[in-house]
Amino acid sequence: MDRPNLHVYAADQALRARARAVIPGGMYGHQNAARLPEGFPQFLQRARGCRLFDVDGNEYIDFMCSYGPIILGHGHPEVDAAAARQQALADCQNAPSPRIVELAELLVDTIPHADWAMFEKNGTDATTKCVTIARAATGRRKILVASGSYHGSAPWCTPNLNGITAEDRAHLLQFTYNDIASVERAVDAAGDDLAGIIVTAFRHDNRVDQELPTPEFARRLRELCDRHDAALIIDDVRAGFRLHLGGSWEPLGVRPDLSAWSKAIANGYALAAVLGNERVREGATKIFATGSFWFAATSMAAAIATLTILREGKAIPAMERMGQIFRDGLAAQARSNGVRIRQSGPVQMPLLLFEDDPDFKKAARFTGEAAKRGAYLHPWHNMFLSAAHREADIREALEITDIAFAKVKQEFGAAA
Amino acid sequence: MDRPNLHVYAADQALRARARAVIPGGMYGHQNAARLPEGFPQFLQRARGCRLFDVDGNEYIDFMCSYGPIILGHGHPEVDAAAARQQALADCQNAPSPRIVELAELLVDTIPHADWAMFEKNGTDATTKCVTIARAATGRRKILVASGSYHGSAPWCTPNLNGITAEDRAHLLQFTYNDIASVERAVDAAGDDLAGIIVTAFRHDNRVDQELPTPEFARRLRELCDRHDAALIIDDVRAGFRLHLGGSWEPLGVRPDLSAWSKAIANGYALAAVLGNERVREGATKIFATGSFWFAATSMAAAIATLTILREGKAIPAMERMGQIFRDGLAAQARSNGVRIRQSGPVQMPLLLFEDDPDFKKAARFTGEAAKRGAYLHPWHNMFLSAAHREADIREALEITDIAFAKVKQEFGAAA
Repeated sequence: MDRPNLHVYAADQALRARARAVIPGGMYGHQNAARLPEGFPQFLQRARGCRLFDVDGNEYIDFMCSYGPIILGHGHPEVDAAAARQQALADCQNAPSPRIVELAELLVDTIPHADWAMFEKNGTDATTKCVTIARAATGRRKILVASGSYHGSAPWCTPNLNGITAEDRAHLLQFTYNDIASVERAVDAAGDDLAGIIVTAFRHDNRVDQELPTPEFARRLRELCDRHDAALIIDDVRAGFRLHLGGSWEPLGVRPDLSAWSKAIANGYALAAVLGNERVREGATKIFATGSFWFAATSMAAAIATLTILREGKAIPAMERMGQIFRDGLAAQARSNGVRIRQSGPVQMPLLLFEDDPDFKKAARFTGEAAKRGAYLHPWHNMFLSAAHREADIREALEITDIAFAKVKQEFGAAA
Repeated sequence: MDRPNLHVYAADQALRARARAVIPGGMYGHQNAARLPEGFPQFLQRARGCRLFDVDGNEYIDFMCSYGPIILGHGHPEVDAAAARQQALADCQNAPSPRIVELAELLVDTIPHADWAMFEKNGTDATTKCVTIARAATGRRKILVASGSYHGSAPWCTPNLNGITAEDRAHLLQFTYNDIASVERAVDAAGDDLAGIIVTAFRHDNRVDQELPTPEFARRLRELCDRHDAALIIDDVRAGFRLHLGGSWEPLGVRPDLSAWSKAIANGYALAAVLGNERVREGATKIFATGSFWFAATSMAAAIATLTILREGKAIPAMERMGQIFRDGLAAQARSNGVRIRQSGPVQMPLLLFEDDPDFKKAARFTGEAAKRGAYLHPWHNMFLSAAHREADIREALEITDIAFAKVKQEFGAAA
């Protein structure tokens, strides 16, 4: 039973043509729809809860949540009301508002490893500041990073080397996520110049299976940082607030010295944070940390509202329940359609990859067919659920994915 | 005739005490009031037009405009309405809204050197991207920067070296603003590895007299970039939209290949932009440029509203008129009070420094006394006017500065 593809993309195509004239390549970055299969719109008009509407009026059930920021659902009334109340007072002034203190207190109260907070606009601002603080606190230079981990778009961490110089990453040493021996080798290579180790909450690199950190790996990073008086930095920009409110490694019993946060912290309002403990507080006072909009109050008011709702404790379990239903449904559909897939990562940040799909052609067909029918998935980036997803949304999305799996089987046959 | 200092700071002090527990050093960056004399509040409650209100209810006439972003006045009704309309649709989604195309078109239509636009959140994002594009476009590494010029808080440009490595600025070569011979020496030193020259719209370094670029200097930078096939980058983050809507060097007849914008672009909403010409368009497509909130629509809607109002052509002349009245009034008051000062820079971005004031003690006394009486000035950073300043506001501020000059004379006597 097919579900008709009624989507038209005329307005989207017209905007794409205009964009090609005034935006390099027609679009850039992770929101460039040219990277995605046919069926994905380049432009979106509005969003509510877990539903998106493109400029042609096509509707989508959203499984990307703006690549993470939307954790309570689009247009959440309490968050938006708190932001609007603050905006009516003031946003960007000559000095911060009281919201900066209230938000710092709320974060310190919520996240056990945090004794203090600083705020920025981009996740990249936060990861870069963590590295800078680690260096300032230790007086050393070497930073260990997992190869393939994404820590942002700054010269020291961008995955694309065009326009970047070799010196931008002169003091980085690589290890392999979850490979303790590789970390130990990198620590040895750093010698007495080890400033810190930065690691994502779990391995969520694009295009490969996601991997949770093993407890041994997490504990060993902590031990090595303690032994060498270096800073352990968790990059919780992508996973933050979706796995555990106290920080993604809190269930492992491993606490970092510094952590980087952004994305979901304010349910879509632009904000990032660095949290740290007493060991690195003085280092944090030594660095230069500022930006024109880093003290602006509206996104902080939104963050306070978002965290207050998250602290009620219902959002993460809800995302887990919906994510499990989605994962189980996808697994069953893949089997019944005779398509071999792998699912990985936390269910609320799911990744679906196809077996024998080196060029992601199956993934493209699958997600393109789903998009044309109203489910906004991603072919090779982890997806995100929000607290706005209800079982009826998941069931409706599964109706669509069942058809999309059949299309994959149809095109790729036995190879599927 | 004194104007009584009725300000109390009890609520501010209480918040400062709370902040010391949860924010390193109690506050950080350019909005850290510990850098400012007594009389400046650390926290602000609300703002309207050119008026600020701190958490104790004290009122200030604002001459900092949030260090630049506020160009039409705080809480501008048309800008805020446009932003609220967009926010009600959606801000941060999986894809940009049509606003990104409309804003890029508006910028390209407004700014003669611009053929395309890309968007970010921080001024630092924009300057860093300009440098990266220059390198990607040329395949070379060396960037010329004026010593002392501020281009942001990233490792390559931060004025504070704590936590920064020498390699972060391995490929920078310095010159002196307005010193053609120093630029030529730096170009020679770059040899065949010159990627670009980045220069602020005018010399607006903190703590020293501001300096407009000489036409010869500006033209020579353009010639050198042309001769060496390098990119001329104007950092218009601070001055942009206050001097000339077409770009700050448009009146000089010198057009850059790339320009960085932020601050005033959306009247306080967090946004930055890189504009470029056809020479560097392909380079712009090669680099990695993305951020979680870089495609968000609300600040773009605010920017469209802001630019639409600015294009009516009244804002810059109004800021110039008010700035001239303020400068003339300050000059007359300094003379009548027997205090020797220097005023520099464009009148709408004024800087007031005191003669024989190496430690900025006179400036601190002057601005502290003014703050206590309701004028928010700055002791060593250029100030900003907005289109919301009316002559009555300037006259009221001048009543305050007259008293502040008298206090300086009183403390420093003949040395003033």
